[in-house]
Amino acid sequence: MSGLSEASFVGVDWGTSSFRLWLMAADGMPLASSRSGEGMLHCSSSGGFQPVLDKHLAEVRAPEGLPVLICGMAGARQGWVEAAYVHTPTALGDLHSRAISVPVEGRDIRILPGIAQVLAEAPNVMRGEETQLLGSIADGFTGLVCMPGTHCKWVAIDGGTIVRFASFMTGELFSVISKHSILMHAVEEGAPPGFDDPTFRAAIDAVRDDASVALSALFSIRAGQLLGFEKKAEGAAHLSGLLIGAEVAAAKSLYGAPSDIVLVGSGALGSLYEAVLTDAGYRVRVVDAEEAVRNGLAKAAARLWVKDRT
Amino acid sequence: MSGLSEASFVGVDWGTSSFRLWLMAADGMPLASSRSGEGMLHCSSSGGFQPVLDKHLAEVRAPEGLPVLICGMAGARQGWVEAAYVHTPTALGDLHSRAISVPVEGRDIRILPGIAQVLAEAPNVMRGEETQLLGSIADGFTGLVCMPGTHCKWVAIDGGTIVRFASFMTGELFSVISKHSILMHAVEEGAPPGFDDPTFRAAIDAVRDDASVALSALFSIRAGQLLGFEKKAEGAAHLSGLLIGAEVAAAKSLYGAPSDIVLVGSGALGSLYEAVLTDAGYRVRVVDAEEAVRNGLAKAAARLWVKDRT
Repeated sequence: MSGLSEASFVGVDWGTSSFRLWLMAADGMPLASSRSGEGMLHCSSSGGFQPVLDKHLAEVRAPEGLPVLICGMAGARQGWVEAAYVHTPTALGDLHSRAISVPVEGRDIRILPGIAQVLAEAPNVMRGEETQLLGSIADGFTGLVCMPGTHCKWVAIDGGTIVRFASFMTGELFSVISKHSILMHAVEEGAPPGFDDPTFRAAIDAVRDDASVALSALFSIRAGQLLGFEKKAEGAAHLSGLLIGAEVAAAKSLYGAPSDIVLVGSGALGSLYEAVLTDAGYRVRVVDAEEAVRNGLAKAAARLWVKDRT
Repeated sequence: MSGLSEASFVGVDWGTSSFRLWLMAADGMPLASSRSGEGMLHCSSSGGFQPVLDKHLAEVRAPEGLPVLICGMAGARQGWVEAAYVHTPTALGDLHSRAISVPVEGRDIRILPGIAQVLAEAPNVMRGEETQLLGSIADGFTGLVCMPGTHCKWVAIDGGTIVRFASFMTGELFSVISKHSILMHAVEEGAPPGFDDPTFRAAIDAVRDDASVALSALFSIRAGQLLGFEKKAEGAAHLSGLLIGAEVAAAKSLYGAPSDIVLVGSGALGSLYEAVLTDAGYRVRVVDAEEAVRNGLAKAAARLWVKDRT
């Protein structure tokens, strides 16, 4: 049984501003890992992609010739080699067949494609999340998946096929509003609030049935502090509650009444979304975001390479 | 009848980052004006308020001893002298009686107060808009007033009394999203779009019945350009349409079905709001924003000083 822990491939999640590499066993177990801030933006502007990959391969002592499977922004037009978007509706189980080969000597390196919703009324794209999705759900899964983050994705899946998805700039809106608008005077940076934070809860409740309430409530964060109703320390929870609450209300408007949902998240933000979604009536199954991407890479790698060696 | 054009007082609209002064006849006619970027922020950080006022008074050759009435941020806590907020519900006709005197020798200088909505569930403040309101409506007016800008105000007035108001950060959201989020790659700066711009119209239509649509549509501005549905030159009209459309949808949710409305606006943005509100079903009466503040200052000044001289 020693073969179970033998390195089978290398998986890489190459984001806009982050790089994560795992030496992986065939069953998806990580044997070693290496990570840094050398994301696409770094590589595009200084020295390229291959030196970064080589450095991290050496870091985990990846055997010569071991294949590498990459997901994320390395496949963007401004990335290493473009892995053109696959269009919805698209079966997650076929993702591997659309991976693009990186023309380098001595190693089979492939990049998984992103997914595009090519609809004039709701154009959308994802890169990286498709691999998390593949790793989060069983073959043939039907249901909704929520993926919180800078640009939260809500994905409707039918029989293992992505049929529709929406993106909410919730995390980025929190950041730009709290740093660059008048609310910079009313919001302190910090970790996400807990769901038991009464300011957060009140904000969630305020927008529960009508996301539009959030639009006029934003300025009230500032006004409420000027008038002594709230302290600056509460501003972040208030803003976070309005934005996350509005996202969930908007998602209900798009996808209908709450039902089962898979939440791909981690850390404090993952826990917060779990509580918010449960409170909103969803039955939530949580998948750790990093496990999801590793599992997705492993599933795709198995389909690409494992049968070649048997 | 020569007295009609005699200087009766000086009116000042002292904003956060702008200063506008008029030498005014008793009937509200401006006889001379002077303006600059010496708003509250400038004065608080360098040299104070009085030298700026004195310079502009000299500029229009204001007669010695002529009284000065100021509205706006000069009355904020961080301004010249704080003119404490008057609380809603408040009669606009009584605004002058709550003006605060600035203790300087040789001239009667007063600052009109802002207005606060001291409600825990919808705290709000305005400074400067109250004077525009006074100048925009007849005594005893009942109805809705929309005041577009960085922080748009929607004000419900009953018999000349402000009963309720809401603020939308529409202008500021446009600015921070287009400058600091991923949409910086998708939105070019420029003048507001025209109402006949098809991209703007499509965005307005998309959020007409559900402001929450704007939340997922934001990211689609970027995705739509990546997928070739839209050009970067259309991004500003798209973003503007989503934000203004969502504001109007949210206002309808707050204030009920469209009816008569007074729009205090000017320039391209005023024209745009006029068209959007008309299209949304409102019967719009437009008041020029600068005329509104001058008229408001004149009405308050007449109540403060004209009777003293007869």
